Formats: sequence, structure tokens, C-alpha cells
Amino acid sequence: MNSILRIGRIELRVMDLELSAEYYRNVIGLEEMARDNERVYLKAWDEYDHHSIILKKADAPGMDHMAFKVKGPYELEVLERKVEQFGCKTWRISHGSRIAEGEAIRFEIPTGHEVELYSDIEFVGTGTGFTNPDPWPDNLRGIAPHRLDHALLTGNDIETVTRFFTEVLGFRQTEKIITVDGEQMLGSFLAITNTAHDLAFVKGPDNKFHHAGFHVDNWYEVLKAADILSKNKINIEVTPTRHGITRGQTVYFFDPSGNRNEAFASGYITYADFPTITWTEDQIGTGIFYHRRELVESFSKALT
Amino acid sequence: MNSILRIGRIELRVMDLELSAEYYRNVIGLEEMARDNERVYLKAWDEYDHHSIILKKADAPGMDHMAFKVKGPYELEVLERKVEQFGCKTWRISHGSRIAEGEAIRFEIPTGHEVELYSDIEFVGTGTGFTNPDPWPDNLRGIAPHRLDHALLTGNDIETVTRFFTEVLGFRQTEKIITVDGEQMLGSFLAITNTAHDLAFVKGPDNKFHHAGFHVDNWYEVLKAADILSKNKINIEVTPTRHGITRGQTVYFFDPSGNRNEAFASGYITYADFPTITWTEDQIGTGIFYHRRELVESFSKALT
Amino acid sequence: MNSILRIGRIELRVMDLELSAEYYRNVIGLEEMARDNERVYLKAWDEYDHHSIILKKADAPGMDHMAFKVKGPYELEVLERKVEQFGCKTWRISHGSRIAEGEAIRFEIPTGHEVELYSDIEFVGTGTGFTNPDPWPDNLRGIAPHRLDHALLTGNDIETVTRFFTEVLGFRQTEKIITVDGEQMLGSFLAITNTAHDLAFVKGPDNKFHHAGFHVDNWYEVLKAADILSKNKINIEVTPTRHGITRGQTVYFFDPSGNRNEAFASGYITYADFPTITWTEDQIGTGIFYHRRELVESFSKALT
Amino acid sequence: MNSILRIGRIELRVMDLELSAEYYRNVIGLEEMARDNERVYLKAWDEYDHHSIILKKADAPGMDHMAFKVKGPYELEVLERKVEQFGCKTWRISHGSRIAEGEAIRFEIPTGHEVELYSDIEFVGTGTGFTNPDPWPDNLRGIAPHRLDHALLTGNDIETVTRFFTEVLGFRQTEKIITVDGEQMLGSFLAITNTAHDLAFVKGPDNKFHHAGFHVDNWYEVLKAADILSKNKINIEVTPTRHGITRGQTVYFFDPSGNRNEAFASGYITYADFPTITWTEDQIGTGIFYHRRELVESFSKALT
Repeated sequence: MNSILRIGRIELRVMDLELSAEYYRNVIGLEEMARDNERVYLKAWDEYDHHSIILKKADAPGMDHMAFKVKGPYELEVLERKVEQFGCKTWRISHGSRIAEGEAIRFEIPTGHEVELYSDIEFVGTGTGFTNPDPWPDNLRGIAPHRLDHALLTGNDIETVTRFFTEVLGFRQTEKIITVDGEQMLGSFLAITNTAHDLAFVKGPDNKFHHAGFHVDNWYEVLKAADILSKNKINIEVTPTRHGITRGQTVYFFDPSGNRNEAFASGYITYADFPTITWTEDQIGTGIFYHRRELVESFSKALT
Repeated sequence: MNSILRIGRIELRVMDLELSAEYYRNVIGLEEMARDNERVYLKAWDEYDHHSIILKKADAPGMDHMAFKVKGPYELEVLERKVEQFGCKTWRISHGSRIAEGEAIRFEIPTGHEVELYSDIEFVGTGTGFTNPDPWPDNLRGIAPHRLDHALLTGNDIETVTRFFTEVLGFRQTEKIITVDGEQMLGSFLAITNTAHDLAFVKGPDNKFHHAGFHVDNWYEVLKAADILSKNKINIEVTPTRHGITRGQTVYFFDPSGNRNEAFASGYITYADFPTITWTEDQIGTGIFYHRRELVESFSKALT
Repeated sequence: MNSILRIGRIELRVMDLELSAEYYRNVIGLEEMARDNERVYLKAWDEYDHHSIILKKADAPGMDHMAFKVKGPYELEVLERKVEQFGCKTWRISHGSRIAEGEAIRFEIPTGHEVELYSDIEFVGTGTGFTNPDPWPDNLRGIAPHRLDHALLTGNDIETVTRFFTEVLGFRQTEKIITVDGEQMLGSFLAITNTAHDLAFVKGPDNKFHHAGFHVDNWYEVLKAADILSKNKINIEVTPTRHGITRGQTVYFFDPSGNRNEAFASGYITYADFPTITWTEDQIGTGIFYHRRELVESFSKALT
Repeated sequence: MNSILRIGRIELRVMDLELSAEYYRNVIGLEEMARDNERVYLKAWDEYDHHSIILKKADAPGMDHMAFKVKGPYELEVLERKVEQFGCKTWRISHGSRIAEGEAIRFEIPTGHEVELYSDIEFVGTGTGFTNPDPWPDNLRGIAPHRLDHALLTGNDIETVTRFFTEVLGFRQTEKIITVDGEQMLGSFLAITNTAHDLAFVKGPDNKFHHAGFHVDNWYEVLKAADILSKNKINIEVTPTRHGITRGQTVYFFDPSGNRNEAFASGYITYADFPTITWTEDQIGTGIFYHRRELVESFSKALT
């Protein structure tokens, strides 16, 4: 139980590696940690593992895989068996397949996305260190989020993927969107930490990526993020607003390949006894965009 | 020069007086100060004159008039002559025509709107008083702005109305929107105080009202305003964002009659030597909505 | 592991039950949930269990006990055995000893404080509910924190109490203060959730209470808290500032009996692999009060 | 009337010109605009005149003079006569005495401070420009205030200096501190703009400098300022708090020569009809530091 620590990394497919690296470095404000012929590895200043975002050169945008960090090799093996028992075939990614990473277990989840579990990755420390640290480092650039926060994916069968993450991997469902008759689940928000969500699914085509969320401190940082995006002529899809779901504050925008990013702040705390919040489909607009109270067309359609 | 102290009041036409009073009291959070058969008088908690918003029962929404407070009777007479000299006919509104008000001078400005000047209105004090005051009063309701901040009106001839306000009434033009060839003025932002604007005009039909802006403290208060509007199922036209023009932070919405309101925060300071900022028409989207970088259709069209 | 969900409640000794209840209701802004002859039970608006603060009539201030919520009866029994194995005698508090509570296990920790574990308490729901909820309820009063956040206690042997909470109860040490020579631990910050701390100890007399921290949303809410305290003539010991430890934003003050309270915002996220941050004694001032960079005398001395 | 536009500059005496310039550039975040053998000239990013702070090499800290910008040469002459009529001898500072400045009129005010009036200074523009500007420039350093905001000076005869600034120079008194019996004025807050104060005097020795205030945007920027000061080991005298007087948010600290600086945010708006707020001496603590509700000893004593 709770063998998984957090969302550890997302590998995004990008069409122009250099342009994308420049965007994630200077607009998002991540640090470039390493690169090889086809990949660039980046981390946020407050993360201590070697990287959380991998950009991979590709012909089309999207998510290659996302990965969760697990406590240790023992927990990794236990989870491997449980994933297999659920009916998902797993395979091993060997040490050194990507820079600074140890062995990982990979499998396809019921929505068709590739997911990895791992416990071994190089420790590099944060921007402030662990001895008498300042609260933030000098020379931050761009949006400068603290960390990768969560991902939202789409899929056809929200019930099954929810069952997979809760029963197999120990996530809790913090919120769900259901049809008004209660018969079908249209959205599922899942937490492995005490946050409001670490991962979410909404009904849509299988194996599609909706967005990666980066954590910023507060509503003023969301404003700063939007200002920086506009200064850099980055297309902002959803200007600063509040989510009904998670209560978080948000701005949505796109990387140069069309992968959606979010700067996300706040959101409530959850515990193992947190009762799942239910949104009914007729209130889905308010749930997603609390101020607009209706969906934005592109928000459902633009997937990578 | 600088005989005018500030925007003093706006009289809005509303179709359901009771419903509108309830909205301005509980959602905007103004205090109802007085009422008679056809009007309700309200003020914000940080204003010390008797009222700044008058709601008047009418068959259609819009602005009956707006009024500027002048230093004293002498300055009022001087301005009356200057208004006449510009070619606008003036007439006197006698003491007691509306509750708590003294005599006023009324005239039609070049865009067809009715404007008044006055120096006499009952002093009632603020919510915190003038002796050892707390920074804010208890029991605030709703958005609870500090004050009426500015108005935006539309008209056909922006050049002439700008000339009227600068040459006759002593306003300074802080920003303007011009066609790319520089030949025509499409927007004009005018200040009589050290704020970024107390009044503005954009090109459109004569004698139409675009919005009344209420001053809130900061970006968090803009979020609170938007939350309160959504809780009250008030239609939010433009969710929280930043203006390029004025740099202010904003949310736009409508009163029950369709008159547009704004909760506005921040904005830079201006002085008599502040050089007018120029926006070219191709950047008008960024000027109005800095994050969206394009206009919202309703924003140009919904006028009362 | 991680059988404990969170800090569940603190029972504070107060000298004037009515005066104290009034303070916790109107200044802190908790809801009074129940009372009997000698106790008043309160909760914060965003908590869903019946109460988190119990005020108990007594001759002197201080903490009667604090309690952690455990997942279920099985985990409670497992922890009971582990506590006993560590050498702490435990006893059972029977169902109904206090209002709305089931059975609890009580024991004395190495610093002499009484601590309880429980899994059974009446569920009452939050102020916003679990179906299509608004982000915050109407009619909040006072500081209106989301929840009880953490406690700080003093004791003579910080090493042993740290070992107790980490080895027996599954807490992680997120930060520690040590002497410059590294030989002695002067402070220990412990988390059972992903927050920066749920409980902390600093060197001082055994069985003393330093403060209870309430969670508020952000730095503006800390300002609002300080304003409200000053309006109510409540003594503010430490005006708004940032902690080096936890990076949190804070204001400290006292309840009518002299028990210290804190309104606390922000703070970083931690995980099972978070490396403990070390503060050396020569930097303790910066660690506690990042802006002042030295301790406040009363802060070490005023204990209840 | 209102011939004066604003506080234009302060010339501070500093003991180590290089060290001081480094502090005002990197910690305060001003731009160095020019320097000669004995002076360094700096401006804030949002100011458009050539400089607002002059550092002058000296043996002891303090204020050489402060200066107000006047509309034009005609107004300058009128004010010169009025100053003389009040009984203050004036003399002319000739064009080119300091870099980028035209002629100025200098005189000693009743508290013994040297004050200048001028209308001629080189225009250099702001960090964002005046055509389709972004709301803030890239590459801000340090606290990065928008502008010099106000000064606080001490003197023996607060009544007379108040009369000088109101009757001769057109300032309005926005707040005053008086003895409980009302017989003596202990503090006087004066505005020439619509802010809560542009200049203030408190009772103390003649010809002493208390502080120069720099304007930052909001309460979060005050936190950022305090964080930056602490990172740079700058002594913070008063950690972030609110003033009762002006309602502003503040942090106080010292430059390397011991001249006090303030980062100041918010504060209400005033107009010509704003009634002076009165603080009685028994509430002076609350007036100055709204959360502490008592004075800080150094705050009255450390003057330069």
C-alpha cells in the first residue's frame, strides 16, 4: 500500500527537439540535465531526481510514456506481479536505456497508454539544497514551477482504468464525473499523494495525452505564468481561472509541438478517508472551469 | 486645472429595480443608502460621499448619466463656461432633484452621453471612519469593492470627445488605440487622477455604455470576485485576466439588466508628464486582453 | 506503513470555556459542533470529521492530548502493539468518553505528552459538500482556516521522540535542527502526509505545548488573519513572516488561555524519499524566522 | 495648485559609493544610469525620468536633499516666490550641477531639510516603453520596485512644516498623529498625488532622514522583497506587516550606510476632499504597525 511515491516523469514526443528544449528551458523554466541524440532530459528546480520531463524527437506529438516512482526494488516486484494479475503484460526496461535511470517495468494500461514504474534514478538535489536552505534559488527563469504535478489522459473506459489504478497501484479516486443518470463515468481524478490529483482520465479516444501539469505556488504565480506566456507569444488556451474539480488555479497552453501544458496552483488536501467528490455531467462545465461554467471546445478536442 | 476630483457617480437604467438593488447589494456588495419610487442609491464601503451608483427604473438598460465631482461652486462655474464655450449646451439640475445631492450642471458630450458636474453631495463617511481606523470594516458582503473606479463608453468620434475631456475638463490621455496608419483614434483612456484611467472611450455607436469598473485590492480579490459571481450564477463574460492597457487585472460580468460591470485591480500610476501610451490596431487584442491576445466578440457588441 | 492518515484532533485546556469557545468560533472561525459540561467540540469548515479541536475546562492552559486518525481498527491494533513494544504503556479510551468519538488508544510518548490513536469518529462532511461543490462556503467567519494542520511540542529528548514517531508510527523526518558539532538534535519536523510537517518537536521542557497550526490558503490569508487578530485586539506574538523550515508563511498568536496558535500557509511537498533537511544551531534564527534571522525570546519561553 | 507632480528624487549620502551602488542595483534592483566622481545616479524600471536616487559619497549617511518635480518653468517661478514669501530663503542650482538635470530651486524647509523643486530632467523612458508595451520588462533584478514612492523625515515642529507643504506647495494632509489632548501634532502625512502619502514627517530631531519608500505591487512582492533581503543578509528592521496609517503593506531595512529603506505596497486613494484621518498618540503603535500594535524601539531612534 502506497508503494508509489509520486508521478516521476513524462516522456513527451516533440517534433523539433531544439525548439522544444528551448521552450521547456526558457518559458517553462526547467533545467536541462542531459541530452543524447534523440532525447533531452529536464527537471524543475525543486525536484531532486535527475529528470522529470524527457523530450523525445518524433514525427508526431504525444506522450511516449509516463512513469511513477516506487519506494524500492521489492515494492517494484510486488507491483509487477499485481499488474500482471490484472491482465496487463509487463516488460522490463533495462538499466541505462535512458540517461541516469535504472531498470523500469513497463506496461500498457487499459486506456492504451504506456506506463512505467521504477525506483532507481540518479539523485541530483534541488536548487536550494538540504542544509540551511533558502526558500528559493536565485536566477529562476520563466514560469519556474516547483515540479511536475500531474497528467491528464483520455480513454474510452474510465471505469476500468480507475479500477486499475485504485486496485492495482493503490491510488484513491478523489473526484469523478458521471452521467446524470449515474450509469457511466466520464472523468476520474486519482491521487497517490495527499494532493487533489496526481493523474486523471477523461472520456475520449484511447492512448491520447491531454496535458501535463506543473506546480506553481499560488494565484500570483499563475498570473506571472500567463504574462510570461504572452510575452513569449505562446498560445494560451485557457486564461487564468479556477477549477471546480480540485479547486486549483490554472492556465493552459501548448508547447511548440502542440502538447498541452498547465501551470497549476493550490487544490485541497486529501487523505485515505477522503470521500470521492461527484460531478454530474450537467455541471461538467463548472467542474472544469469554475468561472466560465462551460467547456472550451478546443479543450475536449486538442489531444496529442 | 484639476478642478475635477474624480468620477463621482453613475446612474444606471435597470429594468427590475428590486432585483437590481439586490444584486448591487449582495453580489457587488454595495450599501443601499436611500431609495425613492424610481431610484435606489448605493455606495461602496470605502467611499465617503452619499452614493456613487444610482439605479433608475427604466424600460431598457444603459447609462442615464455619469457625473464628476468638482472642488467647489467656483470651479463648477468656471467649468460650466468652458463646456459652453466648447459648444455643448448646459443646463442646471436643481438641488434635491435626487436624494442627498446639491445642484449639478448637465450637458451632452460629443459622443451623445449625458454628463454632470457637481460639488455638493452629502458626506456620510467610510466604513472604517477617520479616527484610529482599522484597514477594513467587518461584515463585508460580496465582491465589496473599495469604490467606483471608472467607466468605459462608446462613441463615433473618439478624437473630439478626447479633446473635450482634455481641453475642457483637464483630463490627460494616458493611452490610445490608433489604426496602424495612425490616421484614426479607436480608443482613448483618460485620467483626471493619478490612476491609469478614470474614463475611457472606444469606437462604437454613440451614447452607449460599455461598463462601470469597481476597484478591488488585488489579483486575489479578482479571483474572489469571480468565485462569488459563479456561486451566484452571474454570467462572467471575461474570466480573470490582465489588461495590456492599464496593466490592470480584471473580470467582466453583467448586472441583471445586462449592464456590464468590471472588478478591476492594480494598474500603474500616472502624472501630468506621463507620455501617452500608443496601441496600434493590430495589437488591440493584446491591449485589451493581454493573455488572450484577441478580442472577445461579445465585448465589442454587448452595449447598453 | 502509513496506517496513520493525519493529525486528527487536539484537546486544549482552557481556563474560561465560554470565552475560549467564543474565540475559536469567531476569531479562528471554527464551527462549534457540540458541547457538554466540561468540553466544547469544534471543527474547521473544510474538515469532514466531527471535530478537530476540543476545549476542556481546566485550571491551567496546555494540551490534554493530541490524536492521530488511523485507517481502521486493524491498523489500530497493529500500532497498539508496536507502541507497547517500544516500551510505552497504552490504555483504551472507551467509545463515548467524548462526544462523537469511538474507541481510542492512549499512551505517553517519550516527551511525556499524551497521544491517542483512533479510527472511529462521526463523519459530518465539509462546508462545501461532495456533489458539484463550490470551492468555498458562504458565511465564513474570522480566519476561517481549512483545517488543523500540525502541532509543535517541546521535550528534552528529541532523538528518542523522533525515533518513536518514525520507527513506530511511520512518520518521516523532513527537517532537523542540530548543534553545530552535529552531536545533538534540537528540533525535529515530522510528516506522515506529503506536507512539510504534521508534528514537530523542539528541545525544551517535557510535556509542554508550543502551538497548534491551522492551515490557511496563502500569504494574503496570513495577512487577513493578522488583520483580524489586530481588529480583535488579540496579541500577535510573531507578525506575518516566512519560516526557513518548511518555507511556510506564518503568523503566531495566543488564545485567551495563553495557548499559542498559528495560521500557516504554503510549505513544500515531501515524499518517502525526501532527504531530511538539516539546520545547524547557528542558523536556527533563520530556520525559524527567515526574515528576522534571530529568535524571538517569548517564542522559546511561552509554553503551556 | 497641484503644480507639483510627484516626489522626483532623493540624494542620499553614503559612505562607500561602490558598495552602495551595488546594493541599490542588485538588492533594490534599480538601474544605474550614470556616475561621476562623487555620485551614482539610479532609476527604477517604471520611472521615465533619468534618475530618482542619487548616491553621494560622504563621511556620514543621511539625506543631502529631496526634490519634487514641478509642471514647468512658470510653475517653478510661482512656487519660488511662494516659498520666499513663507520666509524660506531660496537659491538656484544651475543646470548641469548634477548629471541630466536642468536648473532647480533649493531651500531649507522648517525642519531644516534641504528641498529642491525642478521641472527639467532628461527623459529616458521606462523598461516597457510606450508602444504596445508588455506589463513588465524581462530581466528584473532584486526587489525591482516600480518607483520611488515617498520619504519620511523627522523634525521638531510638525505643525509648521505641515503648513509649509499644504499652504505653499499644495499638499493635502491625509493623516495626522496628535497627542491625546489634541494640543500637539506628532506626525503628518502629506500627499500631492492621489496616493495616501508622498511625504511624511514625524516628531524628532530636525534635519534627519527616516526612510525612503519604494513602491512594489502587492503583498506578495513585499514577501519577495523580504526573502531577497534575507538571502542577501541585509538587516530587516521590520518584517512584513501592515501599516494602520495608509493601510499599506511594508518591510523596512537598511542600506549599507544605515539609511533606512522601505518596500511599500497598496495604500488607499485620496482626493482633494479626503478628510484627514486622525490617530491619537495612545494608538500610535497600531497606526504605525497595525499587527504589532506597538512601536519598535529602533524605528524611532535610528535616523540618518
